Order: sequence, then structure tokens, then C-alpha cells
Amino acid sequence: MLSTLNYPAIKSLTIDRYARVLSTSVTVPETVVTNDDIIKRYDLIATDRAVQFAVGIKERRYADDHTLVSDLLAETALVCLDRANVRPEQLDRIIYTKLMGDYIVPATSIKVLQKLGMRSGIPAFDIAAACSGFAHILDMAIRYIDSGDDYVLILGGDISSRSANTKNKKDTRTIFLSGDAVVGMLLGVSDEQHFLASYLYTDNTYYEYSYIPFGTEMLNKTKAFDNTMFNMQMPDGMVVHESVIDSCDIVANKLLQHTGLSIDDIDVFITSDQTTMTWEAQLRKMGVPREKSASLFHKYGNTVAALAPVNLNEMIESGRLQRGMTVMFLAHGAGASGGGFIFTY
Amino acid sequence: MLSTLNYPAIKSLTIDRYARVLSTSVTVPETVVTNDDIIKRYDLIATDRAVQFAVGIKERRYADDHTLVSDLLAETALVCLDRANVRPEQLDRIIYTKLMGDYIVPATSIKVLQKLGMRSGIPAFDIAAACSGFAHILDMAIRYIDSGDDYVLILGGDISSRSANTKNKKDTRTIFLSGDAVVGMLLGVSDEQHFLASYLYTDNTYYEYSYIPFGTEMLNKTKAFDNTMFNMQMPDGMVVHESVIDSCDIVANKLLQHTGLSIDDIDVFITSDQTTMTWEAQLRKMGVPREKSASLFHKYGNTVAALAPVNLNEMIESGRLQRGMTVMFLAHGAGASGGGFIFTY
Repeated sequence: MLSTLNYPAIKSLTIDRYARVLSTSVTVPETVVTNDDIIKRYDLIATDRAVQFAVGIKERRYADDHTLVSDLLAETALVCLDRANVRPEQLDRIIYTKLMGDYIVPATSIKVLQKLGMRSGIPAFDIAAACSGFAHILDMAIRYIDSGDDYVLILGGDISSRSANTKNKKDTRTIFLSGDAVVGMLLGVSDEQHFLASYLYTDNTYYEYSYIPFGTEMLNKTKAFDNTMFNMQMPDGMVVHESVIDSCDIVANKLLQHTGLSIDDIDVFITSDQTTMTWEAQLRKMGVPREKSASLFHKYGNTVAALAPVNLNEMIESGRLQRGMTVMFLAHGAGASGGGFIFTY
Repeated sequence: MLSTLNYPAIKSLTIDRYARVLSTSVTVPETVVTNDDIIKRYDLIATDRAVQFAVGIKERRYADDHTLVSDLLAETALVCLDRANVRPEQLDRIIYTKLMGDYIVPATSIKVLQKLGMRSGIPAFDIAAACSGFAHILDMAIRYIDSGDDYVLILGGDISSRSANTKNKKDTRTIFLSGDAVVGMLLGVSDEQHFLASYLYTDNTYYEYSYIPFGTEMLNKTKAFDNTMFNMQMPDGMVVHESVIDSCDIVANKLLQHTGLSIDDIDVFITSDQTTMTWEAQLRKMGVPREKSASLFHKYGNTVAALAPVNLNEMIESGRLQRGMTVMFLAHGAGASGGGFIFTY
């Protein structure tokens, strides 16, 4: 383990208004892009079989030229609300965790309110926290409900194929990875405690191990702008892979210790799967059998903040996650930053 | 008033662990840039006197080429902690409200942790919400403290001269406006209630009235990138000005009604001052005398999320805001998005 930082102690939440997950949703663009499509488009020396073997991905979705992130988010928001039989007007707040979003300013979540035709000016803002973003906004939603909200809609994911994907065709390590997807989760107030533990951390040791360098520094220095500035840089993928496994272990054990549960008490284990290998390594590390988990990386690729919730939604839609079951939900990402929860669905 | 949206009702916070403001800080770059400096640099047809008359600005600060936002943020964080006699290791969380930040990913707040030499991996993330961002993260900090945190450091502002400022010299309406500044505010747990009311809203009617259009849409369409993509677009400044005044009135009255206070009970009135005219119009609208407020717009320009807290810090540093006094703190910005608080300092 590269890091020598201390992970902070897990704290009890002083909560008297409980939150529960009412519904989830996933929205992906229609266009399926195969490995062969990418190989042909960029004239790469690679084969579909080699790509599948190396990272586990078979295909991913790319949004068409006219689709905005806010279009996908508004669509998934409506599905999510409909599944819980909640009207947009009942919402107290929308929080969106983005990679780039529609614009830098204003928040894309405000555009979502507009597309939902909302007549009430409820609070909405975006946060920027990469693959772990959904853990941050889920933690936030619990606390907003504790302090007075009744319904909080949280949204994640992006059209990251346009930014995170390298346009430098020589970098065959990253060009296959990104896909477009967005997710929604509606949380509502509940009489019973569902979230048994919540934990978030950052580890700045890994700050330069996966990053998109565009920002105020680059604006100052650069005269020639191009798309590659918005590509995810990953100088050593193995270090990132190992840091995810280490963090998974540390966070999972803090959550288990805090709740007094063992890993065998967990019915469904959800985590961010930046590659199929990363997903499988986390299952092995925690001794979780495959049937208790899901990974759609092979189908959707790296969907950034949507990774873990896409897998949660899959467990719900497939009927493998039933009400009353105990879920461990983890997310790790660039920063490094991550966290997790144990909750009763 | 252009908008026909309903502002949501103000809700009581169900809070049992109270927050208070322990300290504030402001950090600005050393380099002072006058109106004449900008007129000369861009060879503009304008005079210092005309600029001062039109928007009220005399000078602003620009960071030098080698300064990162995270440098300024780490500096202000240390000042803020020092003023409250709190060590970095005591912090539970850092939240930063950015315009662009150092990078798109990871969060700049994680870089701040690194620069503080933090040995503990506490949670940290960035939010993106323009000039109202500080209201969002202040509301968040109150709720994090309610649900268990002891110390939350919130940071705002950016090196926005590099992005928001137009590089198109013909647009003399916006080139004088932006300045660089960052702010910090440390909140801690308290036995007594200090925050009497909190209110946030968005108004998507104004979504296209002030924006920085760069995002996933532009990444797709654009072949030729340049600095101007990151410039603040404001098609009708008067509409924005009027929406700020309207929002100020609505939010202030909701806060007063909720607390049962009148505007005369407010000892210090703080708001975002996108121009001197905008500040003065808010004072007039609310019937607040100038001596109860502060505006440093003439000195620092539009510092985005730092606008309102820069003015709060000025009232504290000048001794005009004393412990026990009642503060109304408002912030409005692009989105539109905004909100406010009544708190006892």
C-alpha cells in the first residue's frame, strides 16, 4: 500500500429523522459501441478479444451529438420518481454529481428542474467528486433528511465519452474504458432506521494517479486548447487498482465493525467496478461470492459516478435485491476519494 | 419580475446539534490590477472614470502565472484555523465551492488537504454553484454538524480572472468585473442555537442569463478551443441585476417571517455584490442603512462564491460585527440560485 495516511475513525450519525431508498433508475443512450467499432474508428492495432481479456469490456453506450447530460438526467429523474409514485412537486432538493455537466455554471441540476417543468424553485446544485461522487451525495441526502427534508433526489453520471476518453489513439489503455450513463436515486423520510453506517474518506497520496488536468492552472499556461485536455490521465493503472482494493477492505471493515455485522450478514455487496478485474478483486478480498454482487462494466464501461449505483439498480431490477435485505454499498474513485454504507433496502 | 416560479416555503430545520461560526478569513493575490492597467493591456477605448461610474470597480487582484487556487485555499484555511485556535487534525470535513478549481477531477479540496500536510484522510469534495455556492456549503455545514461533525471548514472563490473574464476585448461590459479571491469559514458545534433560519432556492427562468457554456455539449461540437469558452456570458445584465434584487427581497422576507424578526433587528446585513449598484439596490430595497453592511466590490471585483463572505470578513476584521450580534447573510448568483441565513455571530 502506497499511502501512509490514517483513515479517520468512523463516527455515529446523530440522526433522528431516518432516510430510506425509495427507488433507483438508470438511463443510457441507445447507441451501443463495440470494441471493434472503436478499433475501426481510430484505426487501432488491437482486437476485440484482447480488449475483453485485458479489461473485461465488451461494449459501452455513447450519447449522440445532440444529447445533453441534462436530457438523460431529466429522463432518469422521471423514471425514478414514477417508480416511487412521487411527483416532482414533492421534492425538497436535487443534487447531481457530475464529471463535466452541461455547463461549468450554472449547475446542471437546475437545467434538470427546468426540463422537469418544475414550478417550484427548490434548491439544486452539482458536486464534483469523480467515481466516488455518489457516495458523497448519498451521505448528504441522509443528512438533509435528518435535518428536515422529506424527499431528496440524487443524480450521477455523465456523457464522459466526450471528455474522459482519450482522443489520442496511441493510448489504447484508456480509449476503451469510458461509457455514458446516468443514474437516479430517490430518498424519502422513514419511521425506521435503514442506514446503519456511513463512512467517507479521502487519500491525497493518490491525487496525481488519476486526474483530468483541465482547470485554472491550464487556462493560464495554455495557448493551444484541444479535446485531449479533458482526458483522464492515469500514469500507473496498477497503483489505482491496488488502492481501490485497499480502500475497499478498510472501508468495508470499518462499516462492519461499526454495525457489529460480519460480511456473511451482507445480502448484497455493491461497489464501483472501474474494470471487471477491479470488481473481482474486491469480491475476493472481502470473501463475497459473485451471486451476491453485480458488475455491468462489461456492458457499460466506466460510467464514473454511475458505476456503483448502476450495479445496485441491476440487483433491484433483476429481483436479487428484495426489501428488508442488508446492502453494503461502496464507491471509490479519483482523489483518492471514497466511502460506503450499510443499509437495509 | 421575469420569473413566474413559486419559491418553496421555508421549512424549520430539525436540528439538535447546533453550529456556530468560529472564524472567517480572506486571501487575495498580491498583484493589484487597476482599470487603467486593463485599458492599456487590451488597448480599450475606455477611461478609469467611466468604468468606476458604470460598475463601481477601482481595482481587483489577479493571481500570478504560478499560483494555483489550491495555494490560496491552503493559505486561507490555515489563517481561518489559526484564528479559531483549531488544528487541521481536528477537522471532520472540508467543502470547497469552486468555479473551475485546479483540475476537473479530483476535487481541489483534496489538494488542499495535501498542502495542509494532513495525516488524516478526512472527507473533502467540491461543489459547483457560482456566486451562491457559499450559501449552499454553509447550509450543508450546519447539517453535517447536526448529524455528527464537530468542525467543518468551508472554502470558496477561485482564480476566476483566468476564466470568467472575457478575453474578447470588444466586450468591455465584462472585462473589468472579475477578480481573484478565496475565503474560508470554520464552523464548530455549539451548545446554543446560532442559526435561526436557513433558506435556499433556485430559479431556472434565469438559467441562460449568466453562464459559462463550456461542458459536454461544447466538447462534442467544437473543433477549435480557446480561452473565450470559459468566459461568463451575460446576454442581459439588467435582467440579472433585477433578479438579484427580487430574490434578495423574497429570501430576506422569508427569513424574517420565519424568525419573527424585523429588518431593524438585523445588526449586520451581508449580501453578494456583483456590482456596487447591485449592493446599493439591495440595501435600498430592504431599507438597510449603509453602515450596517459592507461591499468590497470596488476593491476586489466579482469574486464569485467569495463575494458575500468577503464582506462578512470585512465586518468582522473592522470590528463592526461583534459576538452576539444578529446577521442576515444572503448570496445570489447564476442559475439563478441563492439563499440566506439569519444567525447570531
